[in-house]
Amino acid sequence: MIPEQIQKFIELFSKLPSIGPRLATRLAFYLVGKDTSTISRLEEALGGLKKLDRCERCFFLKNTDKKLCDICSDKKRDPGSIAIVEKETDLITIEKTGAFHGHYLVLGELAERGVFESAQKLRLQHLKARINKELSGKAKEIVIALSQNSFGDFTATLIEQVFKNSAEKITRIGRGVPTGGSIEFADEETIMSAFKRRN
Amino acid sequence: MIPEQIQKFIELFSKLPSIGPRLATRLAFYLVGKDTSTISRLEEALGGLKKLDRCERCFFLKNTDKKLCDICSDKKRDPGSIAIVEKETDLITIEKTGAFHGHYLVLGELAERGVFESAQKLRLQHLKARINKELSGKAKEIVIALSQNSFGDFTATLIEQVFKNSAEKITRIGRGVPTGGSIEFADEETIMSAFKRRN
Repeated sequence: MIPEQIQKFIELFSKLPSIGPRLATRLAFYLVGKDTSTISRLEEALGGLKKLDRCERCFFLKNTDKKLCDICSDKKRDPGSIAIVEKETDLITIEKTGAFHGHYLVLGELAERGVFESAQKLRLQHLKARINKELSGKAKEIVIALSQNSFGDFTATLIEQVFKNSAEKITRIGRGVPTGGSIEFADEETIMSAFKRRN
Repeated sequence: MIPEQIQKFIELFSKLPSIGPRLATRLAFYLVGKDTSTISRLEEALGGLKKLDRCERCFFLKNTDKKLCDICSDKKRDPGSIAIVEKETDLITIEKTGAFHGHYLVLGELAERGVFESAQKLRLQHLKARINKELSGKAKEIVIALSQNSFGDFTATLIEQVFKNSAEKITRIGRGVPTGGSIEFADEETIMSAFKRRN
């Protein structure tokens, strides 16, 4: 009784993260109610993603027809300074602030077990090789820009061990009370490090 | 810094129901990580929906190349008995039980203000014209199969007024669906007894 096109849609879209069968069903009926040009535009937007893959140097996104991403190919940026981030969206958030002018390594979403997956180990090894090849074995600075929680801290410690001989200094982004945040609601650890980093 | 393909994807998909910018962003990066055949399959499933539109008789879904839906064109069903449902998914749920062998009118999702939207008024008028033309002005039975809550009850009362001279009897699905429960979440047995106990 359910048209096969609806069934097919639900089958495939319900497998996407945070979209279960209920939302997929809702989307299907919603879209059938829209005119076909709306669907065509969504199809195009979806198809556009096929023109993207990963930069083979930093693992951020790039156009398939380019060798490197916009950041890695930007001559004005400092390749000796490398920020290690977890997700592409973290990189984008940092870029929006303009606070960092170096290059990146995108590690990929960390599993909650507190160990690196094999793809992440490869990316870290890849960065080591990149430092050896491009920077004669020593980066000026590696900034570990992971989320500020005990799990991020643990991962940062692992990364520090991997690169202890590959960088002049290894830093972590500062921890403190965020802009607009009140001391009253900040956790103790945040306040302690905010005090340590007072300036 | 965000590739334009990602921006485009987020812009369009974040407008879909229950998909905000956060989920759209997540989906975009998830999909770039998948191989292109996964994206192609999703594109096809999306495009498939363009082959569906509404049955001009009952407003359920049908293939664009057919004049009527599978239910309206089924000669074995009784056109004199008409169930009025809110959503396509309600119709599908009822069909799965096999409890009803008549035809339908899909009213469309009801606004919470408790009045019919103009499209819904048109559909009700359309049903009236259908009863006049096909059934000489009088249906054998109109079953109001709306969700069992005070809002559904109110809507049912409005529908009863519209069709009071157009049906030998107007019934509502009965005691089986618990107060406050919506048809979508009811199990098959509940729906079957609700149909048997219609009064």
